Amino acid sequence: MVKIFGDSKFVLCLVFSSVLNLLFIINLSVGGRWNLSWSSEGAAEAEAVAAISCSGHGRAYLDGLVLDDERQPLCECHTCYSGPDCSQLLPNCAANVDGGDPLFLEPFWMKHAASSALVVSGWHRMSYSYDDDTSSSKVLEKHIRKLHSLVGNADTDNRFIIFGAGSTQVISAAIYALSPDNASSPARVVASIPYYRLYKAQTEHFKSVDFKFEGDTTAWRNTSTSNTTKLIEFVTSPNNPDGQMNRAVLHGPYVKAIHDRAYYWPHFTPIPAPADEDLMIFTLSKLTGHAGTRFGWAVIKDKNVYERMTNHMSLNSMGVSKDSQLRALKLLKVILERKGREIFEFGYETMKARWEILNKTLSLSNRFSLQKIPPQYCNFFQEVKEPSPAYAWLKCEREEDKDCHAVLKAANIMGREGSRFSAEDRYVRLSMIRRRDDFDIFIERLKELVSKEEGINAM
Amino acid sequence: MVKIFGDSKFVLCLVFSSVLNLLFIINLSVGGRWNLSWSSEGAAEAEAVAAISCSGHGRAYLDGLVLDDERQPLCECHTCYSGPDCSQLLPNCAANVDGGDPLFLEPFWMKHAASSALVVSGWHRMSYSYDDDTSSSKVLEKHIRKLHSLVGNADTDNRFIIFGAGSTQVISAAIYALSPDNASSPARVVASIPYYRLYKAQTEHFKSVDFKFEGDTTAWRNTSTSNTTKLIEFVTSPNNPDGQMNRAVLHGPYVKAIHDRAYYWPHFTPIPAPADEDLMIFTLSKLTGHAGTRFGWAVIKDKNVYERMTNHMSLNSMGVSKDSQLRALKLLKVILERKGREIFEFGYETMKARWEILNKTLSLSNRFSLQKIPPQYCNFFQEVKEPSPAYAWLKCEREEDKDCHAVLKAANIMGREGSRFSAEDRYVRLSMIRRRDDFDIFIERLKELVSKEEGINAM
Repeated sequence: MVKIFGDSKFVLCLVFSSVLNLLFIINLSVGGRWNLSWSSEGAAEAEAVAAISCSGHGRAYLDGLVLDDERQPLCECHTCYSGPDCSQLLPNCAANVDGGDPLFLEPFWMKHAASSALVVSGWHRMSYSYDDDTSSSKVLEKHIRKLHSLVGNADTDNRFIIFGAGSTQVISAAIYALSPDNASSPARVVASIPYYRLYKAQTEHFKSVDFKFEGDTTAWRNTSTSNTTKLIEFVTSPNNPDGQMNRAVLHGPYVKAIHDRAYYWPHFTPIPAPADEDLMIFTLSKLTGHAGTRFGWAVIKDKNVYERMTNHMSLNSMGVSKDSQLRALKLLKVILERKGREIFEFGYETMKARWEILNKTLSLSNRFSLQKIPPQYCNFFQEVKEPSPAYAWLKCEREEDKDCHAVLKAANIMGREGSRFSAEDRYVRLSMIRRRDDFDIFIERLKELVSKEEGINAM
Repeated sequence: MVKIFGDSKFVLCLVFSSVLNLLFIINLSVGGRWNLSWSSEGAAEAEAVAAISCSGHGRAYLDGLVLDDERQPLCECHTCYSGPDCSQLLPNCAANVDGGDPLFLEPFWMKHAASSALVVSGWHRMSYSYDDDTSSSKVLEKHIRKLHSLVGNADTDNRFIIFGAGSTQVISAAIYALSPDNASSPARVVASIPYYRLYKAQTEHFKSVDFKFEGDTTAWRNTSTSNTTKLIEFVTSPNNPDGQMNRAVLHGPYVKAIHDRAYYWPHFTPIPAPADEDLMIFTLSKLTGHAGTRFGWAVIKDKNVYERMTNHMSLNSMGVSKDSQLRALKLLKVILERKGREIFEFGYETMKARWEILNKTLSLSNRFSLQKIPPQYCNFFQEVKEPSPAYAWLKCEREEDKDCHAVLKAANIMGREGSRFSAEDRYVRLSMIRRRDDFDIFIERLKELVSKEEGINAM
């Protein structure tokens, strides 16, 4: 016995080996790795792709292009970056502040990788329906109601909720639902300039006998209360493109309003009170940033409208993808775990900082101006908040700069023309919600452009 | 030294411990579990839910209802089963052979759990677009072409492919794309009875000024070649509900055809040759069984038609969910890994066995008859194949049995009325593609019903 304990190397080996075994057991038990079987192959594949380095200026995806079956997916580079690992910044490349891709939220999800990872089994939800024979997840609906209650941005009590493939599909459902079934008097669909082009493009494309896009609300403002023509007004609040908290301008017994509340989240605006309209539309795109998932919803007071919208979804696409609904549920769970604060704090701080930088860059400019948005009390954050709009609605002030888009394009900045919002081309919409890379390059180009104005020293 | 090696228990402990170390290291390294980090939480959660026992007569899902936050999702029971673990068979419960939920393929995916599991990171594909600025995955498109080539059921060379949220959405895109832009002469949309009800319901719902659902092709058969009214004919082959290999019946310069090839896979029919029509529609629902994913596609010859359909998808829902596209890609990869044979062998054997059992059950019946489908050579399987249709098109032969659906309902069998396919109610569609539980209960009820016919001994 004495001799054994005297051979300390031997004893140390056994102790070390035992401790190592204990650590393995703990390591595998924590997070349940001990029990992983069928999911580990897919998990390893996803983690391998996530680990591909694209120098912080690109991303590789599971379904990305591969050069051949042996290799990993290629890096997909951010605008103005190039090369196999996206490390090469292209000189004189145009900054992209055109599209409304809400990628400013990507870093939040990368930070919450563990809680937001979703594992989908091969047999997950193969059926057309959920257990209640509908195509909408009641569990997801419950989480949406909970979120609205937490944020205080919409009243969902005693209201119906319907899902769509993005607010895009919900919008068409709303138009169909609110239109009469009587071709002799189609509903006139209107919106106040500047408005989101989809309202016009989609309504005109569907070309139903029951509705017709008319354009601006102005022509109807003085007649709407006595008028018997059925009107459907789009009210976007905050508005796309100018961030204004629009209200319905038409009223009367033959007027219905569709309230597009896509941007009514603390990222983009103070929340003074819950939205309380008859038909309110939201989208995952502008809440979590997952535009690619194609998930939106409407909160509806009237049961008949709800049923007509449900019928539209059913005939249009037999409801929304169960994969999209599962993804949305996962993301909402992550938000709700943190009482909603973290994502909105992240979103707000990011957007506010960008708005401040943009305003500062243009502070000495006489050539360009931005929309004014006053600070306002936010009931969610419980304090007065500075503006943090999703878009800048830039105006070219010089008489000769009628085509503001062209002015910016010449300076390597790609925005979206005012005419795309039925406004003058003296205006350009600049997207503040894209990636950090997009914003940084944009500010660099804008500084250069502003510095060329007479009387302004290069910043 | 002698004394140490003399204490064999001690040596054994060290050897055992070292071997255990080695096994842990191997175990963790294989399958990359060693490296799992952010995905392991989601993986463990998914595996825990998959392990919930629902007695083989139900399933628990990640997004299933939970009684409270602490518990696991509830079992969702198959038709006629009940109880917390779905083990209770409800007596006198009606068999469900109504809906076309393709759940007969679920066992295939459970068998291939490892290769079909998908791990979606929180930041996966947040953007509206892929790297090429479109909303469709070119990698997925490549796999679809490869699959069609492998199965030999469609010629995709020099043709365009467009995606939709189920073939449901692709169908509406096709109608809009093939219709003229001239309201004075809307296209007439027709189909040969019996036809899938969606064609009528959807076309009538959209109510465009550019098209109008007319009904059966019969009225146009003799006039189509000289007629100048624009016609759009739906040709479904194999047909839903009767499995017939329909061909276009209308011809002429003003006639366009939409070929719905949803069932043109070796599960349901021999494949004599690749389909080669101008516009062919397919759906993931009837290929892999994933109806809930909402993914379909069209193979299109004409570039203008393709562009018009793309425009429709864009305005309808800004393309298809990236989550659905990733899921579809994963499932196709599993199919292609096995040169497509395994899933079609599984599918065909299942469907063929069910058709044989059904025919045998009705073999002595004078009250009911089924559609006749001859055996045919299949180029994919390289042999003559017996029929294996997705649906039985049952006919009530007795004069008094005008409402065949009611006859079956009285016997606790829920089929789908012939009038839902614009045919007589003497016909009922019986879905052969549902779960094993659905089919077993159906056959039990049917045997009972047939046994009551005069002159037939109980089977």
